[in-house]
Amino acid sequence: MAEDVFKKIVSHCKEYGFVFPSSEIYDGLGAVYDYAQNGVELKNNIKQYWWQSMVLLHENIVGIDSAIFMHPTIWKASGHVDAFNDPLIDNRDSKKRYRADVLIEEQIGKYEEKIAKEITKARKRFGEAFDEAQFRATNPRVLDNQKKRDDLHQRFSDAMNANDLEGLKQIILDEGIVCPISGTRNWTDVRQFNLMFKTEVGSTAEGASTIYLRPETAQGIFVNYLNVQKTGRMKIPFGIAQIGKAFRNEIVARQFIFRMREFEQMEMQFFVKPGTEIEWFNKWKEMRMKWHQALGFGAENYRFHDHEKLAHYANAACDIEFKMPFGFKEVEGIHSRTDFDLKQHETYSGRSIKYFDPETNESYTPYDIETSIGVDRMFLSVMCHSYMEEQLENGETRTVLKLPAALAPTKLAILPLVRKDGLPEKAREILDDLKFHFNCKYEEKDTIGKRYRRQDAVGTPYCITVDHDTLKDDTVTLRNRDTMEQQRVKISELRELIEDKVSITSLLKKLV
Amino acid sequence: MAEDVFKKIVSHCKEYGFVFPSSEIYDGLGAVYDYAQNGVELKNNIKQYWWQSMVLLHENIVGIDSAIFMHPTIWKASGHVDAFNDPLIDNRDSKKRYRADVLIEEQIGKYEEKIAKEITKARKRFGEAFDEAQFRATNPRVLDNQKKRDDLHQRFSDAMNANDLEGLKQIILDEGIVCPISGTRNWTDVRQFNLMFKTEVGSTAEGASTIYLRPETAQGIFVNYLNVQKTGRMKIPFGIAQIGKAFRNEIVARQFIFRMREFEQMEMQFFVKPGTEIEWFNKWKEMRMKWHQALGFGAENYRFHDHEKLAHYANAACDIEFKMPFGFKEVEGIHSRTDFDLKQHETYSGRSIKYFDPETNESYTPYDIETSIGVDRMFLSVMCHSYMEEQLENGETRTVLKLPAALAPTKLAILPLVRKDGLPEKAREILDDLKFHFNCKYEEKDTIGKRYRRQDAVGTPYCITVDHDTLKDDTVTLRNRDTMEQQRVKISELRELIEDKVSITSLLKKLV
Repeated sequence: MAEDVFKKIVSHCKEYGFVFPSSEIYDGLGAVYDYAQNGVELKNNIKQYWWQSMVLLHENIVGIDSAIFMHPTIWKASGHVDAFNDPLIDNRDSKKRYRADVLIEEQIGKYEEKIAKEITKARKRFGEAFDEAQFRATNPRVLDNQKKRDDLHQRFSDAMNANDLEGLKQIILDEGIVCPISGTRNWTDVRQFNLMFKTEVGSTAEGASTIYLRPETAQGIFVNYLNVQKTGRMKIPFGIAQIGKAFRNEIVARQFIFRMREFEQMEMQFFVKPGTEIEWFNKWKEMRMKWHQALGFGAENYRFHDHEKLAHYANAACDIEFKMPFGFKEVEGIHSRTDFDLKQHETYSGRSIKYFDPETNESYTPYDIETSIGVDRMFLSVMCHSYMEEQLENGETRTVLKLPAALAPTKLAILPLVRKDGLPEKAREILDDLKFHFNCKYEEKDTIGKRYRRQDAVGTPYCITVDHDTLKDDTVTLRNRDTMEQQRVKISELRELIEDKVSITSLLKKLV
Repeated sequence: MAEDVFKKIVSHCKEYGFVFPSSEIYDGLGAVYDYAQNGVELKNNIKQYWWQSMVLLHENIVGIDSAIFMHPTIWKASGHVDAFNDPLIDNRDSKKRYRADVLIEEQIGKYEEKIAKEITKARKRFGEAFDEAQFRATNPRVLDNQKKRDDLHQRFSDAMNANDLEGLKQIILDEGIVCPISGTRNWTDVRQFNLMFKTEVGSTAEGASTIYLRPETAQGIFVNYLNVQKTGRMKIPFGIAQIGKAFRNEIVARQFIFRMREFEQMEMQFFVKPGTEIEWFNKWKEMRMKWHQALGFGAENYRFHDHEKLAHYANAACDIEFKMPFGFKEVEGIHSRTDFDLKQHETYSGRSIKYFDPETNESYTPYDIETSIGVDRMFLSVMCHSYMEEQLENGETRTVLKLPAALAPTKLAILPLVRKDGLPEKAREILDDLKFHFNCKYEEKDTIGKRYRRQDAVGTPYCITVDHDTLKDDTVTLRNRDTMEQQRVKISELRELIEDKVSITSLLKKLV
């Protein structure tokens, strides 16, 4: 069911000019997508909303735009060269490569499935009298599978934490996991595969040097933080915001634009005095949740997921998860990264990048709170919650994208009732006035009803119809996408009626 | 002189938070730069101005955002795999690598310099009576150098056009060109070096596949044009606009952000009916020039440079050049690319991507007019023409960036006269109202005079001072960056006074 909805959304994205598979006429490129004419506007509006919420609303946050190419030692300092790996294993018969951790996770899932099957069977047999908790606690087949699942989970965790590649392989052998293609257990050893893309830059006679495509935008902020602080006369606490592309050579990329090899991040690093970081971490959790909920999709679609196991650099971490058709998924992460990154860069660069506090005359390495959100995931979550199929009173169905008006690609469609009698000219007169202020589309082909449906499908919050009365009294019919209600309004009042409702400012005002 | 000004601009960019060398704490990465807190805002405003001028003002232009990663065959079709090369030569003693064409161009420059020296000498000797044309036509040393220069230029052009690498090497040997480092003529052969960055994507047991970082954004439009046309119901003529990163492994990158290995393009491809392309080419030349000149830097700073020699795919081409401290330089290119690219993609993909005209019932491959502008070059040209050192009446000098107000990073600085008596609170009240509408900065440290200077240096068009009278009558002093004139205005009128002048809309209105 949810899978069906997701498929519909993916095909809607293609059909209505939101997202195209990249290089489609060449049969595509795996896990890479292009944003089409409506998608690029929606994406830009999401970026604007984020950027303005950071930079305009906070006196102490400024932006930067650092390059994708960075000095390779930066990725040594950040830990990505040594530890940003996936454990891969090949099947010698099919010649297919897999992530060892994913194979094992799927095996854990199989025990889950067996348990679920037993329960379903028993529920059918016992009807209303069925007591699941008791059944789980006593049924020997369920108990056996639960034990196998738990033991496997424990072994798997231990091997992952110890970075024990032989241990992972032994699990695959012991569990008798077979290749889905060849069906055999003819596995190679497990090897680490670094997820960073490499390229060669420059060309010296001694040989070019290897650099990486950045796997995250955060480091571009860390290595610039002191330059920004000094030239911008910033005082702790202060933040640096950035939007930009990042790249990861994912072996298993999936779920449309949810996990791509080329993706875009919106990250803000907030530098604070050591000891105050948990207070700020909690503040940013709240502020970021407010940002999401200001879009109006309903609080029940969001939840916090606090990390129990922390990365070595973090002393607190939390995800904001959004309800997708395929379950609650991480859209944003908020991490208290301590002074790990800045200290690493001090060590590797040999430069002091301490902050000097002019009020207390002390120097220290700031602690950092990161808020990190994937633009593409955010885009997908907005699409998923805006997409609706509605039954109309006349029995027809309409597909409508109930996008927040401030994010909609087109704000106003201007539609002459017929293609004659001077109505197109009048409609274009209105267009020529309003187009400076927000994105307007002019459309004259097909019946008004069909044109309304097309605008519904791309999420246009308002349509106006220019008819014969317009020529007499300079009024038009203004139609609301969500209610489908129509009202007669003066042309001279249109800008004021619409502009506030469709502007990013309207969202920003909900945040203070 | 001009060189000095350019150096000052480069250091101003660093000191005032516009552009930092990338990875500076790691001693930088060659020919890569980061945009700092003020630079990113200026750059974003330039992008907005371009995007809105394309997408909002033209009914028949829409945007897209295609990925950097594309199917590798696309670069075969476009000709980049085979022909996007620089001729390189190594000096065996210094182990340094050079572009053979650049070495020869520098040699041509040396003959120029010799001629210029003779002329300067003669002008000194003859004073006002000096007739340069006659001197050039008769002086034997000038004539000799002119002949050497012209002969060399001809030989060089022939070798480049014929892709004659041995010929290039022979020129270097015949001219006795030495390595600037070792001073020797111990040269290797000339070899072709492809400028595209490569990387490996995916990971299959059979081996990963090589893809390229796109060297231009144009191809992302071509391969998507039919999808956009169909899903967007576009009719010829129509255009597709795109802003995005591109990458070229330049051997000799120079002039600050003018030529970088990672850069950003704003490209619009306009698809027209064959036979109408020259008419559209001329229209776009005029429209693009108007776009540049709307910034108000003065028409004398721009010129067209029509290409005499055309690339194999073009039937007309022209640059818009902008006067930089180092001479007139290309900032934008307008090219009539015929149907070359689309036809190549038909051939290589094996798909028909013809346009079907519903009115005439015919199918054809459209012709394409490209307008292509480098964001970073545009940024640099704006900085160069905004940077000024002005003598003030009191004998002091002020450094002021006379940025077009719509492009300025900060629109309004809000300055309490003193840090007491409730003035900071009153100033922040104003900030909290205006910050939703444009970029405002609050600053309270140092004297008002110093704060004005700092705002001048980052190009803030307006400052307001909140003083003791403000508390009584709700008025503030509004100061104009360029005239330095101050006027007393009501707080309630500020938004209206400023918003129109600093908005991108104010620029767009000059274009129609």
